[in-house]
Amino acid sequence: MKGLKIAVIGGGSSYTPELIDGFIKRKDELPVKEIYLVDIKEGEKKLNIVGNLAKRMVEKAGLETNVILTLDRREAIKDADYVITQFRVGGLKARAKDESIPLKYRTLGQETTGAGGFAKALRTIPVIMDICKDIEELSPEAWLINFTNPAGLIAETVLRYTNVKAMGLCNVPVNMKNTTAKMFDVEPERIRMDFVGLNHLSWAYKVYLDGVDITSEVVRKNLDEKALNMNNILDLKWDRDYLTHLNMLPSPYLRYYYMKDQMVENQIKDKEEGKGTRAEQVMKIEDELFKLYDDESLNIKPPQLEKRGGAYYSEAAVSLISAIHNDKKEIHTVNIKNNGAISNLEDDVVIECNAFVDKTGANPMVIGNMPSIISGLVHHSKAYELLTAEAGVTGNYHKALAALSTNSFIPSVTTAKKLLDDILEANKEYLPQFNGR
Amino acid sequence: MKGLKIAVIGGGSSYTPELIDGFIKRKDELPVKEIYLVDIKEGEKKLNIVGNLAKRMVEKAGLETNVILTLDRREAIKDADYVITQFRVGGLKARAKDESIPLKYRTLGQETTGAGGFAKALRTIPVIMDICKDIEELSPEAWLINFTNPAGLIAETVLRYTNVKAMGLCNVPVNMKNTTAKMFDVEPERIRMDFVGLNHLSWAYKVYLDGVDITSEVVRKNLDEKALNMNNILDLKWDRDYLTHLNMLPSPYLRYYYMKDQMVENQIKDKEEGKGTRAEQVMKIEDELFKLYDDESLNIKPPQLEKRGGAYYSEAAVSLISAIHNDKKEIHTVNIKNNGAISNLEDDVVIECNAFVDKTGANPMVIGNMPSIISGLVHHSKAYELLTAEAGVTGNYHKALAALSTNSFIPSVTTAKKLLDDILEANKEYLPQFNGR
Amino acid sequence: MKGLKIAVIGGGSSYTPELIDGFIKRKDELPVKEIYLVDIKEGEKKLNIVGNLAKRMVEKAGLETNVILTLDRREAIKDADYVITQFRVGGLKARAKDESIPLKYRTLGQETTGAGGFAKALRTIPVIMDICKDIEELSPEAWLINFTNPAGLIAETVLRYTNVKAMGLCNVPVNMKNTTAKMFDVEPERIRMDFVGLNHLSWAYKVYLDGVDITSEVVRKNLDEKALNMNNILDLKWDRDYLTHLNMLPSPYLRYYYMKDQMVENQIKDKEEGKGTRAEQVMKIEDELFKLYDDESLNIKPPQLEKRGGAYYSEAAVSLISAIHNDKKEIHTVNIKNNGAISNLEDDVVIECNAFVDKTGANPMVIGNMPSIISGLVHHSKAYELLTAEAGVTGNYHKALAALSTNSFIPSVTTAKKLLDDILEANKEYLPQFNGR
Amino acid sequence: MKGLKIAVIGGGSSYTPELIDGFIKRKDELPVKEIYLVDIKEGEKKLNIVGNLAKRMVEKAGLETNVILTLDRREAIKDADYVITQFRVGGLKARAKDESIPLKYRTLGQETTGAGGFAKALRTIPVIMDICKDIEELSPEAWLINFTNPAGLIAETVLRYTNVKAMGLCNVPVNMKNTTAKMFDVEPERIRMDFVGLNHLSWAYKVYLDGVDITSEVVRKNLDEKALNMNNILDLKWDRDYLTHLNMLPSPYLRYYYMKDQMVENQIKDKEEGKGTRAEQVMKIEDELFKLYDDESLNIKPPQLEKRGGAYYSEAAVSLISAIHNDKKEIHTVNIKNNGAISNLEDDVVIECNAFVDKTGANPMVIGNMPSIISGLVHHSKAYELLTAEAGVTGNYHKALAALSTNSFIPSVTTAKKLLDDILEANKEYLPQFNGR
Repeated sequence: MKGLKIAVIGGGSSYTPELIDGFIKRKDELPVKEIYLVDIKEGEKKLNIVGNLAKRMVEKAGLETNVILTLDRREAIKDADYVITQFRVGGLKARAKDESIPLKYRTLGQETTGAGGFAKALRTIPVIMDICKDIEELSPEAWLINFTNPAGLIAETVLRYTNVKAMGLCNVPVNMKNTTAKMFDVEPERIRMDFVGLNHLSWAYKVYLDGVDITSEVVRKNLDEKALNMNNILDLKWDRDYLTHLNMLPSPYLRYYYMKDQMVENQIKDKEEGKGTRAEQVMKIEDELFKLYDDESLNIKPPQLEKRGGAYYSEAAVSLISAIHNDKKEIHTVNIKNNGAISNLEDDVVIECNAFVDKTGANPMVIGNMPSIISGLVHHSKAYELLTAEAGVTGNYHKALAALSTNSFIPSVTTAKKLLDDILEANKEYLPQFNGR
Repeated sequence: MKGLKIAVIGGGSSYTPELIDGFIKRKDELPVKEIYLVDIKEGEKKLNIVGNLAKRMVEKAGLETNVILTLDRREAIKDADYVITQFRVGGLKARAKDESIPLKYRTLGQETTGAGGFAKALRTIPVIMDICKDIEELSPEAWLINFTNPAGLIAETVLRYTNVKAMGLCNVPVNMKNTTAKMFDVEPERIRMDFVGLNHLSWAYKVYLDGVDITSEVVRKNLDEKALNMNNILDLKWDRDYLTHLNMLPSPYLRYYYMKDQMVENQIKDKEEGKGTRAEQVMKIEDELFKLYDDESLNIKPPQLEKRGGAYYSEAAVSLISAIHNDKKEIHTVNIKNNGAISNLEDDVVIECNAFVDKTGANPMVIGNMPSIISGLVHHSKAYELLTAEAGVTGNYHKALAALSTNSFIPSVTTAKKLLDDILEANKEYLPQFNGR
Repeated sequence: MKGLKIAVIGGGSSYTPELIDGFIKRKDELPVKEIYLVDIKEGEKKLNIVGNLAKRMVEKAGLETNVILTLDRREAIKDADYVITQFRVGGLKARAKDESIPLKYRTLGQETTGAGGFAKALRTIPVIMDICKDIEELSPEAWLINFTNPAGLIAETVLRYTNVKAMGLCNVPVNMKNTTAKMFDVEPERIRMDFVGLNHLSWAYKVYLDGVDITSEVVRKNLDEKALNMNNILDLKWDRDYLTHLNMLPSPYLRYYYMKDQMVENQIKDKEEGKGTRAEQVMKIEDELFKLYDDESLNIKPPQLEKRGGAYYSEAAVSLISAIHNDKKEIHTVNIKNNGAISNLEDDVVIECNAFVDKTGANPMVIGNMPSIISGLVHHSKAYELLTAEAGVTGNYHKALAALSTNSFIPSVTTAKKLLDDILEANKEYLPQFNGR
Repeated sequence: MKGLKIAVIGGGSSYTPELIDGFIKRKDELPVKEIYLVDIKEGEKKLNIVGNLAKRMVEKAGLETNVILTLDRREAIKDADYVITQFRVGGLKARAKDESIPLKYRTLGQETTGAGGFAKALRTIPVIMDICKDIEELSPEAWLINFTNPAGLIAETVLRYTNVKAMGLCNVPVNMKNTTAKMFDVEPERIRMDFVGLNHLSWAYKVYLDGVDITSEVVRKNLDEKALNMNNILDLKWDRDYLTHLNMLPSPYLRYYYMKDQMVENQIKDKEEGKGTRAEQVMKIEDELFKLYDDESLNIKPPQLEKRGGAYYSEAAVSLISAIHNDKKEIHTVNIKNNGAISNLEDDVVIECNAFVDKTGANPMVIGNMPSIISGLVHHSKAYELLTAEAGVTGNYHKALAALSTNSFIPSVTTAKKLLDDILEANKEYLPQFNGR
């Protein structure tokens, strides 16, 4: 059996040890021959630091996997079996802008939702489209596993505008499942969590423990006890009346929607009090991490990495790759074409859903109709995503204005336009598609 | 041929002379035997004033129509051929609250959209449901033509929860068409305007003059010249880039959506400057109107009525009745079940659309798919309407919270809850369905 | 106002005087400047005979219309406003084969349904595709009104595989409506007949007289009295139990489906008894007609033409053209894209339905869901049509086998194959697309 | 852990040893406490013979399962965990009529498709509805696993007209998969076979071996080698051109559709030559089997049972029960609501499809759109099933006529009526719902 070739685009990311750790844990089921860590010239130093740690980790674990550091993306993609994308166009500096520019207009500053996520999408799309062209040419049978945010919108773009076999992946669903398992003090395998919606806009609409419906209990626990959340999201409590009636477990990201005004007010307050953006906090964490990584005696994933966020990131990615490679017939939560799974949503749009994964890829599990309490929001956000994907691919200013105006966090076309102009200006070096307008 | 019996619920409205005038104008095609003007005890005085004017108008015009003033709704509905509903639960005082309460939370104060429209819907639903029960019992073959706002949401409620044959009607579409005809200096008959969307959330997506597509020209005129608008809506300009790309003519009410923040800021400023709400302005206009009406020498529709708003109100209503009665096979813009007209919207929800009208009623014209730039918003608003209709019928607090939280103008569940509690308290005498909770 | 240019492909047809008569009758509303009657070399003699009659008719009626006879199709199509197609590839000889070949396998021999209609479609498609290429090049704004059978399948082909603005037209629906009007002794204008289905596979699911539902009465009359039928269809009685339960008026062509075995047995018996096919009968009628037409003293449509069938043919065509040209906003029954009119059928397939016709063309009226009693058959036939259209365009043998196997009249794949081979052989001079296989 | 209670309706069937053998093989994963074998008075003798064999088998295998023989269905159903229905109303005598009556009219005589399957459905529906009433009352949480044919139509009836948790099950899909595995000389686990369609009208549209698409190869093998088939179906070869183009593996039952005329001719020939129906052959096999079963020294499933047909029957049933009970998250092929799995078919109809099975039941896997080459037939057959289910439940003669007329094997309404009258007469003792008409 031939060993696998894995290409990791954005290989210089601080998350890479997490990913390497995942491959090490599954070494018995995944015969990885080569891991190519690719980055761009600007990221070469970080790539070397984290790449050398990766090499030490692999060696320490006794794997025969070859870790190759390279700036040559095409070399990495050629004949790859899996391409993992975890790059960040513009780095944390661009993220800091995504988080701060919208606050000028009193709208949410966040890297995946609202105007910030929109800016990140526009920066990411030209790069992912280039990567996909390479895959179409150099490894058309490869699976693209995309982690780069906004992961759902990027999956929508790739699956709509390229011929690449791709899935979008996010660590939130597995986080929700595992955290719930902890709440009930059981192994995650005993929990079945059925998701509906889009990436960062999803709900666990049914939760089962050993086949018994425990949805109401999960909701109650998230009201009575500390609700599950992500590192980077302000920990506001859900409204009890609303959540009890909803009787689903919302993604932590839904705090941005359900508590839109409070979230923005808190961000504005933080800014006024001189607290940095999340990007700035992360920059500090990253500095410390890279100092750690640079220590040649380190040859395992350092525990400090957990502070960075991204829990279960490697579990999601590597277990998905293993399910495909080993024809596992398992359920994973991924971003793929709806294809009828949600009846009251177009067939050809990307959703985040449970899917049956085997060697042929991922097939969504049937969901049925969304109830009104979520369907309006999902339709609204999907319309925004479709318009943004088109704007990102075409570089059409009017499409971009239409897209941003359709975003749930944007209070008017008028504000959308001001924001759009600011975003285009602040990101112009990363938006070649809008050049020349 | 037997003469028609018309029941007008809310007969004491200042608009009634407009309606009577409509019947007078179409006397040759509509053999109206009786017009019952019904009102409630609190409105008796106004009913008498406007009712007596109606009698004088009919007499002056030489009609044999009998105008009957009554507080007995069942007497009016019994064996009626058409029931027209134009009542306002709680009167203009309630409207003033609808316009002011939301401003406390810096959200739009408007009588048909946002939290104000929500409150108006909750007040209206128990009354319209009662009326429908009467119709089901006393005149099951009657057509209910509903004008009471929010007209689309009320049509949704009636067509979902009763067996009454009903259409919702609004003067905005006919206004858009007639104003456009004026812009082009042609007779309205030469204009064809295709609508898509919901009441007060609709777009003329195609406009034809003598069968030639003039949509882009209509858009340009609404940018270059004075855009068409309604009396009661602040006259903000559309964004040129957005509208040109959209290439549809939005309902004037879409200003509330496309310029949400500016609209609210203006309302707040007006309030701070002591300007009254629209309700308060209307109260003054109405006082003057009723003084005029009370003049026994007046026997025509006074021209001052036009200031009140509601242009083309009688044209829409009476021409629709005539189209049904005379089997005219004409196109009218009404609020009825989608039934497949918009492909990417549920079949069983009410939309505002062009419909082919003959003796059997109204059949929607096929529209096809909504593009993303409008479909997200339409789905979102329809979800809000469905939840509100259910909340209004059941009096369920949690449903009401879900509904208001889903409204596009409401920034969070948290704010929705505060607003809901204020609305329930401020309107409690008109919300029997929520009593006892 | 410029006069219209009309191109009639198959201008040498015996029906042409009917069409000319239609234009004469509507001379006040249709300013026809030129009628080009086009035919192929083989039809030149007939073209001259009928064309000269047409000229005499126009002259006698005092029209200024110029009737031009030509073999140059491109000259006729260039800048035409309307292109009417009524040609018959292979003439009545080919029809005779369509009617006789299937009988070898004890399946229906009929020119529009079953294997005969399939053969006719394969012959017609290459020609109509050529015509459409000419229209796309020479008169892209022209309306194509197609009468050539199978009219629904040809409309499906044109609307799926070309960019021509087209409608399929058939005289059956107007026949059903007018015959029903006669049964009730009223003017056709007072009847509204709502159709659902495909061409030659349609039902009047609702019939109204002055807006009152008379469907059950229509059904009863078609059981108690002489049922409406077409000249060319054996006059078998509907089953009373079935029709009463169905409560719709089936197209006369549904006799072929509802009495499949009896129809075939009768055809076989006729053949064994030496009775000619319908084609052979028609040949005789045509011979007589052309003798009449050749009489230079004849300058009106001769009454004998009615024996030929095709009643209301000109009414359907000319009134449709007038509705478009004069922006009439009338209901016509045409073959166009479903576009959501029938909810439980694909949006992009052609159906026969009532449509609202004005200068912009024809928009289907909303129909809703088909009940099971008809929907299975409609889906089955539409699948056959789609496969046949594709086979006719591509000349793919396997597609053709798939298509014919899917036809409701064909008892097996095995029989389909034998029939297909016979059909391809017998029609080979008219099937260029299958050459070279 | 409490042991399971299994109720087997039609416990006296000759298949019962197969089922018992299945439970024995899975004894380690299925803790069955009680198996109730239920039958009716007329079947008591057979019940005793086969039931005593079952007891000996269980004892020999060392199980602690209690086998109870009873005529009291309600006792068996009460608190059951699983109810398996395998009864045959009217026994093989009725089947013989199903197979012979249609031949009078030269249409297929078969127990699950055509008029025979229709008659069987009408006999079965009143009984299964009664059983469901018992389950709703006595064991509402039980799963009903139905084997009684026509299994898809019965599943449609149960899931449409009762509240019972049910799945229809058939041994054909597992047979197709296992036979294909044998053709490729691999373990069935390595084969993935994706099904689309209805019971006895299904296609394996994709076949994978270890995740590699082998569909074309499977088709080729079924053309070049002995095609897979069932005991009871005449072994006609598929048409090579058709099947190659189809590129799916049809259910063996599709021979009845694809070779309709040959199948009927063969049946007629067999009859004329005095060969008995399949029912009569089976009666002989059964006689021999029951003689064997009655031998008190027999305590295993006798190998002769295989001749009876029904291969993999126990595997399908017991492995499904185990997948539910043990929350196995496995794919099984079952008859359940479509729920969006096939995009171009109504959501609420029963299909036969792969489903993900765990403790919560079965969820269909997403399939997407059916191509035209199969969709017409599937729609047609589903329309027939829906009408038959309604006729069977209501006992409405007109519905029954509509249903039978819609069956693909019936050549006309006229023939349908004669057949229907024969069927109602011949089966009258088993059709209480049609009494009194």
